[in-house]
Amino acid sequence: MDNGYNGKILRVNLSQNTISEETLDELFCRRYMGGAGFVTYYLMKELKPGIDPLSSDNKLFFMAGPLTGLSFSGSARHCVGAKSPLTGGYAKSESGGYWGSELRHAGYDGVIIEGKADKPVYIWIHDGEASIKDGSHLWGRNAKETESTIRTELGDSHIRVALIGPAGENLVSFACITNDLKDAAGRGGMGAVMGSKNLKAIAVRGSKMPKVANRDGLRVIRQWVTDNKALYAGLSEYGTIPAAGMQRGVQTGNVPIRNFRDGDFPITKIDTDTLKNTIRIGMEACYACVVRCKKVVEVNEPSLTVDPAYGGPEYETLGALGSTCGVEDLKAIAKGNELCGSYTLDTISAGVVIAFAMECYENGILTNEDTGGIDLRFGNAQAMLQVIELIARREGIGDILAEGAKRAAQRIGKGAEKFAMAARGMEVPMHDPRAKAALGLGYAVNPMGADHCLNMHDTAYTAVNPNLVALNSLGILEPLPATDLSPRKVNMFRYLTNYCLVRDSAVVCQFVPFTIDMFVDMVKAVTGWNTGTVELMKIADRIFTLARIYNLREGMTADDDKLPKRFFQQHVGGPSANTTPYEEEKLEKAKSYYYTLMGWDARTGVPTSETLDVLDISWASVK
Amino acid sequence: MDNGYNGKILRVNLSQNTISEETLDELFCRRYMGGAGFVTYYLMKELKPGIDPLSSDNKLFFMAGPLTGLSFSGSARHCVGAKSPLTGGYAKSESGGYWGSELRHAGYDGVIIEGKADKPVYIWIHDGEASIKDGSHLWGRNAKETESTIRTELGDSHIRVALIGPAGENLVSFACITNDLKDAAGRGGMGAVMGSKNLKAIAVRGSKMPKVANRDGLRVIRQWVTDNKALYAGLSEYGTIPAAGMQRGVQTGNVPIRNFRDGDFPITKIDTDTLKNTIRIGMEACYACVVRCKKVVEVNEPSLTVDPAYGGPEYETLGALGSTCGVEDLKAIAKGNELCGSYTLDTISAGVVIAFAMECYENGILTNEDTGGIDLRFGNAQAMLQVIELIARREGIGDILAEGAKRAAQRIGKGAEKFAMAARGMEVPMHDPRAKAALGLGYAVNPMGADHCLNMHDTAYTAVNPNLVALNSLGILEPLPATDLSPRKVNMFRYLTNYCLVRDSAVVCQFVPFTIDMFVDMVKAVTGWNTGTVELMKIADRIFTLARIYNLREGMTADDDKLPKRFFQQHVGGPSANTTPYEEEKLEKAKSYYYTLMGWDARTGVPTSETLDVLDISWASVK
Repeated sequence: MDNGYNGKILRVNLSQNTISEETLDELFCRRYMGGAGFVTYYLMKELKPGIDPLSSDNKLFFMAGPLTGLSFSGSARHCVGAKSPLTGGYAKSESGGYWGSELRHAGYDGVIIEGKADKPVYIWIHDGEASIKDGSHLWGRNAKETESTIRTELGDSHIRVALIGPAGENLVSFACITNDLKDAAGRGGMGAVMGSKNLKAIAVRGSKMPKVANRDGLRVIRQWVTDNKALYAGLSEYGTIPAAGMQRGVQTGNVPIRNFRDGDFPITKIDTDTLKNTIRIGMEACYACVVRCKKVVEVNEPSLTVDPAYGGPEYETLGALGSTCGVEDLKAIAKGNELCGSYTLDTISAGVVIAFAMECYENGILTNEDTGGIDLRFGNAQAMLQVIELIARREGIGDILAEGAKRAAQRIGKGAEKFAMAARGMEVPMHDPRAKAALGLGYAVNPMGADHCLNMHDTAYTAVNPNLVALNSLGILEPLPATDLSPRKVNMFRYLTNYCLVRDSAVVCQFVPFTIDMFVDMVKAVTGWNTGTVELMKIADRIFTLARIYNLREGMTADDDKLPKRFFQQHVGGPSANTTPYEEEKLEKAKSYYYTLMGWDARTGVPTSETLDVLDISWASVK
Repeated sequence: MDNGYNGKILRVNLSQNTISEETLDELFCRRYMGGAGFVTYYLMKELKPGIDPLSSDNKLFFMAGPLTGLSFSGSARHCVGAKSPLTGGYAKSESGGYWGSELRHAGYDGVIIEGKADKPVYIWIHDGEASIKDGSHLWGRNAKETESTIRTELGDSHIRVALIGPAGENLVSFACITNDLKDAAGRGGMGAVMGSKNLKAIAVRGSKMPKVANRDGLRVIRQWVTDNKALYAGLSEYGTIPAAGMQRGVQTGNVPIRNFRDGDFPITKIDTDTLKNTIRIGMEACYACVVRCKKVVEVNEPSLTVDPAYGGPEYETLGALGSTCGVEDLKAIAKGNELCGSYTLDTISAGVVIAFAMECYENGILTNEDTGGIDLRFGNAQAMLQVIELIARREGIGDILAEGAKRAAQRIGKGAEKFAMAARGMEVPMHDPRAKAALGLGYAVNPMGADHCLNMHDTAYTAVNPNLVALNSLGILEPLPATDLSPRKVNMFRYLTNYCLVRDSAVVCQFVPFTIDMFVDMVKAVTGWNTGTVELMKIADRIFTLARIYNLREGMTADDDKLPKRFFQQHVGGPSANTTPYEEEKLEKAKSYYYTLMGWDARTGVPTSETLDVLDISWASVK
């Protein structure tokens, strides 16, 4: 080994009221990297089979990576994981902001939460020390109140807080954990797991910079970011997507409209250019980042106020609470974003669940009796906002919808299931697989389900992408059409989803336009390891394979690697009417080839014993 | 693409007496690199199925790579390929010296020889011009005479000549093509193919340096070599193996002794230390190389002279003509080396074929009648030298042995086959798979057969290797025992044989101790491509898969991926008596897993259509 990075983990048992520390050896860190890699390892290693995700048997993992908290753009992220109450399987979700960096500055690379407190608590971590504190007075309070109360009582306004609002306390299956009010470990219901443990928040403060093996190497990266403003000027100006991207998304059928049913929508009413010119009051950054891609919006009208404390809606939120619900009112979308932030709800699942309810309502499957009189038509902005509140409080129709689209549809019956746009139980995000074929494969095989964080493989690297050269070092020398799902596309998909996974393990942001080779250079500089793309691909294979085994152990099979039927049956109308539906047979072939490339059985998707040996994870073998 | 290297090929049709030039586009060059990659492409693309290797239908490919002929250590190599008269399948073989560099300085990256001249000819290539010249006066002459005659008649003592001696003219199945008298494209019978075309030599002279995309990048490599003399001090002092390595090789069972039958041999009588202290008169270098690993020996005794013009015996030759034949007389081995150089015979096949004959003789399968009275016992140095001459002239027993051990055994019958130490018809080189398990897999699955040029994967990178760190970037973080053949070992084997193949395509020498990451840097500097290890691995997959398809098309199957039975049945005696025989079942399992990793059918070893698509070689599909 090269004498580089290792890690220190804080283990908090809320049942026993104990706190301990563990030091990870370097070989372990090199095999699992950090972030998503650590989460996956612990999930497989420490969770008993078949546990209820909302029982004290589940654990909640907060994991930074070797890149987290260093002073360069993109380093502000951490990963949260647990068994998902939404999917019943593997879940992990990354968040930006300041909290993860602060955790590393406090001397820790991760926190493992075990058990369940007998009354509400929060955890306070401060420069190598940690304690469990009473949180009864925080229970029921929204995100902003919680953060400010903790900061006040601990006497430090720079404390960073990861927390849940009422949606987490009420065990909404898609409750998220937010930190710094504006950033969320959004997907998979991590907030419900936190709520089930009576854990309201983790407050962190630290003052030490993590060690870096080669500071000069890091300086080169930092200089590159400074010198290449043009590459992220669009992000700095518009946030995670430029207005033109949203407009093109409607043309190509990528932007979901009215629960993925339609193709036409006046997107310019809610795009990022309109947002910039109306309600936006500024742009903010995560820790150490010069990109500054985070919108802040404010509305002060007699009938509607939006609190800038919760930032502003990113692309996924504009799509989920906007076009997916048929809502054309930008201010209402911003309000919805604020509500989700305040209650700690995942905006993607919230929007898609509400769109599901809207389509049920328009088809008579849900009635005014079910909705408590809410006129739940597509496009009704007020209805959208009302239902967010009902979900967070688990009141009326909200109590059913809080289970997520898949389980809600099962409970509603009457054919509602055909309107539940979820894969593996997770609501489909704002990229339509009918427009991006490899993404559909991703939704199907991703151990998370329909996760938006693997979407770079198709949008970013096909015919329209001028940066194809960045993939040349992977042997991808020619662009491939977005709707292609040939073996070479599946191969590219595997490389790029693998890249995403090590990126989420390092942990670093996808929006700073690092090439894969630069990413390798960053890991080398920070860890001191003589690593390379082949090793990083192997690390991702290891993590994906472990996650696969975890899901298999929990009872999932290749039959769960599925997309909602709508994608196979229906063309998208409107301007994208020429978009062909996804071909199920094509997906099945691509799945089988993906399994093969991963070293899993081509039919069952079960990792072979040879693959486990090569990946050093024979310990995780199932059966 | 990155606007870098492309290639220019000279095509010479000896039947039609025509010469033409072809320019290769950059995308093609990037997919096949050069050297072995180009050879493999043309072999599959241009040779008709089922041709006789010694007919005018065969073609002979001389291919440099993008690194050939540049001024840094290790750049002196080129690759020669054709359908093999020894194995009936794919063959390619690399050579050092000066010839390949000179070819690139003359403006060409490769020469394709087609057809057959109606009388002996040679080709003269000089700074962008080429001609076919009468070679009748050269026919029958040895290597040294041929080179000096050509230099004299063309009036330039710096002309570099690749040529065949009488063994090539006489179509000995393992005749090689030598250049600069001391370097050979040794394996697979390339010299016989050249002879079958009535082509005696290719003389080259050039004065232009090939273009380099990034001279500074190359300067860094050159400086690294200068600064790291300690890494190759042993090579500079002893040649391709230090004496201690040979001694350890006998202890571990790696050095073949008496046709791979025995374990005990007084190796210090013929090791590189003894050689240095007795007959060695100097060390020489290939073009631009500071390592200087090439021995020159001289003997001037009444009963024996050895001409220094042919250099001196490297490790493979010391083993093949020495311990494998039981010969303890270093001067006789040096004489054998000179004879093989002069006649242009592959020393490895020559030694193993003679050892085969010796074991047949000792077991009464060959008699004095067969040998023409030669007392062909193991250890009879004079007999060894006599048989070399008989083989080269195809006289007496030599005419049968000139077919190689496998076919000779078939012709001899009487159970001789059990003594034929060949895989896929190619004689096993001087590394015993009973001591190095992955190497045995290599001999079995290598499309060449038992090729010594893939041996780095096991010797160099197992428990004994201090440079394991160089493999870390491939995700290989822990040493594996030499006798291990687990999936992870097979995976390592694949990475490293793949590396060897791109190295042979670039083309660069294995003896300059570049790490894989430095090799990537060299390719980047020279070509300007934004390449990386993943792309290089894919290039190797492409070439190996094409070679596999070539052999399948020529009638080979998974049943040809075999080792001689002796390795499974017999322990090696003497000091290495504790060496276990190779387990056939272990090999079969490892083969199947190797097929899987390569994207070939796990049982038949036939590349899948998906693999062909990913590798951009669907055009080469068989059946």
